[in-house]
Amino acid sequence: MKDKKLVEEITSRDEDFAKWYTDIIKKAELVDYSSVRGCMVIRPYGYGIWELMQKELDDRLKRTGHENVYMPLFIPEGLLQKEKDHVEGFAPEVAWVTHGGEEELAERLCVRPTSETLFCEHYANIIHSYRDLPKLYNQWCSVVRWEKTTRPFLRTLEFLWQEGHTAHATAKEAEEETIRMLEVYAEFCENVLAIPVIKGQKTEKEKFAGAKATYTIESLMHDGKALQSGTSHNFGDGFAKAFEIQYQSKDGSLEYVHQTSWGVTTRLIGALIMVHGDDSGLILPPRVAPTQLVIIPIAQHKEGVLTKAMELQARLSKVARVSLDDSDKMSGWKFSESEMRGVPLRLEVGPKDIEKGQVVLVRRDTREKTFVAMEELEVRVQELLQTIQQDMLEKARTARDEKTYVAHSLAEFEKILEETPGFIKAMWCGDRACEEAIKEKTTATARCIPFTGEAVGDKCICCGKEGKHLVYWGKAY
Amino acid sequence: MKDKKLVEEITSRDEDFAKWYTDIIKKAELVDYSSVRGCMVIRPYGYGIWELMQKELDDRLKRTGHENVYMPLFIPEGLLQKEKDHVEGFAPEVAWVTHGGEEELAERLCVRPTSETLFCEHYANIIHSYRDLPKLYNQWCSVVRWEKTTRPFLRTLEFLWQEGHTAHATAKEAEEETIRMLEVYAEFCENVLAIPVIKGQKTEKEKFAGAKATYTIESLMHDGKALQSGTSHNFGDGFAKAFEIQYQSKDGSLEYVHQTSWGVTTRLIGALIMVHGDDSGLILPPRVAPTQLVIIPIAQHKEGVLTKAMELQARLSKVARVSLDDSDKMSGWKFSESEMRGVPLRLEVGPKDIEKGQVVLVRRDTREKTFVAMEELEVRVQELLQTIQQDMLEKARTARDEKTYVAHSLAEFEKILEETPGFIKAMWCGDRACEEAIKEKTTATARCIPFTGEAVGDKCICCGKEGKHLVYWGKAY
Repeated sequence: MKDKKLVEEITSRDEDFAKWYTDIIKKAELVDYSSVRGCMVIRPYGYGIWELMQKELDDRLKRTGHENVYMPLFIPEGLLQKEKDHVEGFAPEVAWVTHGGEEELAERLCVRPTSETLFCEHYANIIHSYRDLPKLYNQWCSVVRWEKTTRPFLRTLEFLWQEGHTAHATAKEAEEETIRMLEVYAEFCENVLAIPVIKGQKTEKEKFAGAKATYTIESLMHDGKALQSGTSHNFGDGFAKAFEIQYQSKDGSLEYVHQTSWGVTTRLIGALIMVHGDDSGLILPPRVAPTQLVIIPIAQHKEGVLTKAMELQARLSKVARVSLDDSDKMSGWKFSESEMRGVPLRLEVGPKDIEKGQVVLVRRDTREKTFVAMEELEVRVQELLQTIQQDMLEKARTARDEKTYVAHSLAEFEKILEETPGFIKAMWCGDRACEEAIKEKTTATARCIPFTGEAVGDKCICCGKEGKHLVYWGKAY
Repeated sequence: MKDKKLVEEITSRDEDFAKWYTDIIKKAELVDYSSVRGCMVIRPYGYGIWELMQKELDDRLKRTGHENVYMPLFIPEGLLQKEKDHVEGFAPEVAWVTHGGEEELAERLCVRPTSETLFCEHYANIIHSYRDLPKLYNQWCSVVRWEKTTRPFLRTLEFLWQEGHTAHATAKEAEEETIRMLEVYAEFCENVLAIPVIKGQKTEKEKFAGAKATYTIESLMHDGKALQSGTSHNFGDGFAKAFEIQYQSKDGSLEYVHQTSWGVTTRLIGALIMVHGDDSGLILPPRVAPTQLVIIPIAQHKEGVLTKAMELQARLSKVARVSLDDSDKMSGWKFSESEMRGVPLRLEVGPKDIEKGQVVLVRRDTREKTFVAMEELEVRVQELLQTIQQDMLEKARTARDEKTYVAHSLAEFEKILEETPGFIKAMWCGDRACEEAIKEKTTATARCIPFTGEAVGDKCICCGKEGKHLVYWGKAY
């Protein structure tokens, strides 16, 4: 059967998850490889998902008072070096421009791996008085980090992201902003991407180069590995001191600003695939599905079928993103293709349906079929899309919770990782030595100390001393 | 008077146009300079204009069937060299990445100056059959060209743009697409930016590196200099042959595709400034004005004024992009600031207005004042914004036409350039030697051969032989 082929060409998810992942991104036409090592071509379908994500997130950033700007692509070496921890963290993984045209540059330029230094330089120029604060800026751009091993969306030399950079009068305001933006990310992941996240703080070891504190949202993939899905950093006044960003306060004194930065990237498309996908391909939450409903005419050569299909397309385009597959492929093949692309709803309409004044709606997530009367379509399609969106989040939450374990000892910790990979909740004394020992022994890392303040015991699983924090541990992408 | 200061700080437009331009971009907070030579920081107000331009143009690209994608930032040297004319045109002005992290690269990567080569490589991967055609792709990104002298928006090392790249089955389809996209640009410039353009073809000398034909839209700035405002290139099958992009036709034969590319950039923001601005600052057409109407309360400390202003803001935000300036600055200063930023409409409301149930509306373009009854505001504001948009286009067209001259001899040509710079229409024999001689003698270049097919004589103004084409000449940015 020709209509089985598309699915047979992809590896089963539980057999080889890594292979399944690369099969999906290729067959669903999300990316293509290029001759540039570690860089990807994001194809229309993949970019369509990103555009919907951008729109949703950009609206949230604007609603919370942020303004978009654009900073240069290049950072002179001297500027990158101004903040010591920051340059140590990033210098080993940047791309260096040494020549412009025929001429060798006096000072090397790095291609931005992140733009703290550029924002700082600009803020030093434009912030003078308390009246200039806060500055709530964001930019959408691409950044480059010279990674050794790469995988499309998850880890690439170049990726797309947004980076927020803000400056505030007080430490308190900066901390509030850092947490506010993490909450925005969490709400976005859950309500738009249908991906539940754990909100928490990174350990000292895992925090961002130059930050005072890093907060994170962590999600769990189908294979039990964690994915850092967004981070928000509080810099305190460290950068302000390095870049001399000062303002005159109301009472005339000269003060340093307090800064934050926060970002999410195209890696979230990788999360969408690995949280929701199955052996037939992608499953996209309706809110980021470039096509929310595909109309597939059955026996389309028969009189009236295509006309009806086009009429339905015109009607439903008013309430959803709709496409019509009127190509000359077999229906079974069309079903497979739309499943591979994760289109949330499929509408089948054939001569018998037309006679009965109905159509068939099939959900991608549950494969559930419903017969719906023509005149109820607009209402039912909207309801179903909402239901799918909610159900996908609940399903992902259940899967995540089922793969979240508790370990009271290192032995237990190792057994879980070996047999049933997932998040492991375990107590930690707070010492870097124990964190490193656990990583060395298990390859799992501290994902975060959750905001919930929960506890599952009172002793560190590594040293047996007082367990100060509950940590979510896991192997991570 | 404090309220005069802001305007006094900028140079008069007719005194020193170049200085006026840089004053405006600084005072209207469009850009800031950075420590990266030739690269600019686009500030929120400048980026807000770009976002509105992007939205308008992106809608047009999608309506004409184009899909957005994202290609890598880097091009390996070997890939750039595949098309001979192309590499010759661009290699002297690219930035080269030679190191990734600590390691020297085996092959240099250039930072994309334009992405033909990357699109070609991708098209060779994904185009196999006539069913795969046409491919109508576009990308929004930044590109880098190592320019020696730079000016914000007009010529910068890095700039933002969209680049469309399409592949077609036949030469005819490619030519149609090239012209269609030029028409889209022309319509966009006139209806959105209120900038009238001349549509035409570039001479062989001025065409794009690697193109068979380049079409252009040319606009005229207030100082009589031309600005190339958008270009559209027909590549024929030149790139397809260099990159082996072939498809199987319906009858089974193997054919090369025919390609196009077209782009407009952030330089159009420079055009907005130089076509519409005056000695008080920017004048923005309503369709790309981040703030379309600013409410300035008069005697705002008096009871009821601020409340009324906020009520009007809430009402008018439903029909326009509205801001309220309730800062503690003097009203005159607020007027100057909103004029500097080119806000199309100013609404003044004070105690006496409230008593009379009216407000004052002031147009930025004509400074015309109107008293409008409160209850008519929504309707009148929308009408006025439309009127301003249209009037600005007409005013710019009149100014352009008044500065468009005819020359029948080189002497006449030089006299016009010297005394009344602008577009000069003059006949040309079609020989490159004459084109170069004219440029050498006058520094004016052939802007385009207009689509109109008009003529102003029958002899080449340079050699006196048959004048085959009327050319628009001018000094250009």
